[in-house]
Amino acid sequence: MNWWGKLSLPQTLTLGFLVIILIGSGLLTLPISSQDGTAISYIDALFTATSATCVTGMTVVNTALHWSIFGKTVILILIEIGGLGFMTFAVLMFVFMGRKVNLTTQLLTQQSLNLESFANIRSVVFLVIRLSLAIQLLGVGLLMVDFYPKYGLIQGLSCSIFHSINAFCNAGFDLFDNSLVQFQNDPYLLFVLTCLIISGSLGFLVWKDLLLYRKDHFLSLHTKLALTTYLGLIGISFIVYLLTEGNFSENPHLTLFQRLMNTYFMAVTPRTAGFYTYPYTKISMGGMFFTMILMLIGGTPGSTAGGIKSTTVDILLIRVWATLRGKRDATFMGRRFTNENISRSLTLVFLVFVVLSVATLILTVTESIPKRFGIEYILFDVVSAFGTTGLSLGLTPHLTLIGKLIFMVLMFMGRVGIFTVMYSLLNSKHPEDAFRYPKENVMIG
Amino acid sequence: MNWWGKLSLPQTLTLGFLVIILIGSGLLTLPISSQDGTAISYIDALFTATSATCVTGMTVVNTALHWSIFGKTVILILIEIGGLGFMTFAVLMFVFMGRKVNLTTQLLTQQSLNLESFANIRSVVFLVIRLSLAIQLLGVGLLMVDFYPKYGLIQGLSCSIFHSINAFCNAGFDLFDNSLVQFQNDPYLLFVLTCLIISGSLGFLVWKDLLLYRKDHFLSLHTKLALTTYLGLIGISFIVYLLTEGNFSENPHLTLFQRLMNTYFMAVTPRTAGFYTYPYTKISMGGMFFTMILMLIGGTPGSTAGGIKSTTVDILLIRVWATLRGKRDATFMGRRFTNENISRSLTLVFLVFVVLSVATLILTVTESIPKRFGIEYILFDVVSAFGTTGLSLGLTPHLTLIGKLIFMVLMFMGRVGIFTVMYSLLNSKHPEDAFRYPKENVMIG
Ligand SMILES: [K+]
Ligand SMILES: [K+]
Repeated sequence: MNWWGKLSLPQTLTLGFLVIILIGSGLLTLPISSQDGTAISYIDALFTATSATCVTGMTVVNTALHWSIFGKTVILILIEIGGLGFMTFAVLMFVFMGRKVNLTTQLLTQQSLNLESFANIRSVVFLVIRLSLAIQLLGVGLLMVDFYPKYGLIQGLSCSIFHSINAFCNAGFDLFDNSLVQFQNDPYLLFVLTCLIISGSLGFLVWKDLLLYRKDHFLSLHTKLALTTYLGLIGISFIVYLLTEGNFSENPHLTLFQRLMNTYFMAVTPRTAGFYTYPYTKISMGGMFFTMILMLIGGTPGSTAGGIKSTTVDILLIRVWATLRGKRDATFMGRRFTNENISRSLTLVFLVFVVLSVATLILTVTESIPKRFGIEYILFDVVSAFGTTGLSLGLTPHLTLIGKLIFMVLMFMGRVGIFTVMYSLLNSKHPEDAFRYPKENVMIG
Repeated sequence: MNWWGKLSLPQTLTLGFLVIILIGSGLLTLPISSQDGTAISYIDALFTATSATCVTGMTVVNTALHWSIFGKTVILILIEIGGLGFMTFAVLMFVFMGRKVNLTTQLLTQQSLNLESFANIRSVVFLVIRLSLAIQLLGVGLLMVDFYPKYGLIQGLSCSIFHSINAFCNAGFDLFDNSLVQFQNDPYLLFVLTCLIISGSLGFLVWKDLLLYRKDHFLSLHTKLALTTYLGLIGISFIVYLLTEGNFSENPHLTLFQRLMNTYFMAVTPRTAGFYTYPYTKISMGGMFFTMILMLIGGTPGSTAGGIKSTTVDILLIRVWATLRGKRDATFMGRRFTNENISRSLTLVFLVFVVLSVATLILTVTESIPKRFGIEYILFDVVSAFGTTGLSLGLTPHLTLIGKLIFMVLMFMGRVGIFTVMYSLLNSKHPEDAFRYPKENVMIG
């Protein structure tokens, strides 16, 4: 058995992501990666590679101005690997090399895609890749309709490819000065982008269920929950932003339809995509706090999203409501959640709050806050990094070295999963304790 | 069976606190309660009564300047009722009237004091009351040593009584302009006050265990956990505040010993007492965020404290660590925590975060934030209200009507307990569901 055969599943996953980030950072630090041919500092290359692989989209240098075509291609490849999950690629390699997919790879792919059963992992992986590429190609075509007249063939095509990939993988890098603020009055572009964002953040399992529905007439509990939540959250977000930012007072020239379209865009992006048409530094305090909650919730598990994950929050809300109503079971659409699911969700949320609190506490000491901001200047970017959203109130480009290191850890935990990272660090073996201490109750709350 | 016999336990507790607050607010709104003989608006009287009964110490009018001797006495009585728990008083009344304590009252007292067993409720209640009064009397004597030379007999004595009660009950009302800022260079006073604060916030169960230790040689898991946490948190807080505020740059005249004493005072008060010698508007961002974490954690259950409660946080930290290490049981000093304890703790924390987030979101819309502050202006006071700490960055005296209502709900939930309030609102009956839906796993995190 070779040395990597001894690694646990979470360790292999964590290590795999780390290796990809390190290779990416090595490439990005080459002079060929930057437009002016001078090498960027290694920490900034590492930060960009982490941000790309973890599909976060946080930047310490301007993407359009700093990176060469080579650098941008490296970033796109990292995003694609991070978005589809590097395990999908591993399986693909096995298949191409004509070898049978072995059990370890199956287990890894399953964990990477958050699949619950072994059933035909190979066909699912192929489905995932074909579907992703098809949607991204379609995205390129639809974006070209808008970008070709504006930028011509070459620049229009590269711009379409870059933003199609970034929208579908929910990475949120852009080639403009100020994200998509200049496209406020371009409803077609905003609509295409939201479609790509939603396709990518629904998660592969939901897609699989939907595609096979005509044959199977079956939707898993996961798919039902994920879809309901997705629609519900977009609806609630739309209403909240209408109330807090609906007047778009900064932009009196927008028509009512354009305002509604921008509000809809705003409702779709903060949970993980990270594009914006309305600068978050000008948002109201209520809108800003609500955006933080959305970033913390994040997207569907098994998708390109980070954060706590929408279904996790659902389960907890349903469980709390059941507890308060004195019900034994937490149920949704005729199914009850397992105790393992619930206890794992609760532990996850508590762990996230501990990690984010510690990160924020350190950053309040190491980073400096401009006069016109309060603690939201740090909190917003911290939540954004963990949610792999990539929105910023302005802290990220000014991070200190310690700040950059903390943000890289947050993005990594957000994408790879806080449990996976923790398990690999602690190398837990899940032993059954032979001896148990006697139990005793203590007071709660 | 009379109508109140049909109320559930949580409903009786909630209703009891409500009635006391309403009576208090009625008295405080009388012209006789204010120094200038004019009636205060009812909402401000209600806010003060809630703040006193919930031992929070948040004020919308200056305590020393606005209230007459009568008004101050009403506030002190509300604090004493809130601090010792009105159920203690109910048992006392039964006892004085020569009647045997009935089962309902026992159950209520048990819930109110967070006792886990029925064992001699009557003797515990007497112990609680005797001990509390003894400590507060001792406090008055010790404070007189300081206040008598400064203010003379009458004013010194009333000042001593007021602050002894407020320190022991962790209420945090004060008779000065700016809490205890003028006593920065009075280490004796600060030391006496911290002793009173700690006595009150250890919780009655810990006191009982400690007092009976010479006879029983037994400490409950609760007491071991509570004491360890208490010492640990004071130690950690002392170090953190030394790092973030240790230089006390605003106060160059303080000696090293006085600085250490003020840092110690700062480490003891934020978890529930709410006195301060260093204005929190001048604190560093790191210190402020750390104070928010301390207020959220709160004190020991069964004490005068609010918040999530220290032992709850302990259990979760120990459980998360055990989960990450792959251990089956969460253990502490040779005892393991029950699953009921753990799941109740996790649910509590999640519920608290939902409630605080919703409250903050509404307040970001209804309240206005001064230029030099960010969202911490709202978050700090929200956490302070729920933790029944009573510290403020300045929002509380300027609250709108909606703001005052939200803060009253937060203080009430913090003191009475979020589960108790929720259970009474929803009137849950804890039925065993006869029919169960089939279970199904979904993806987590
Ligand atoms: K993103
Ligand atoms: K208090």
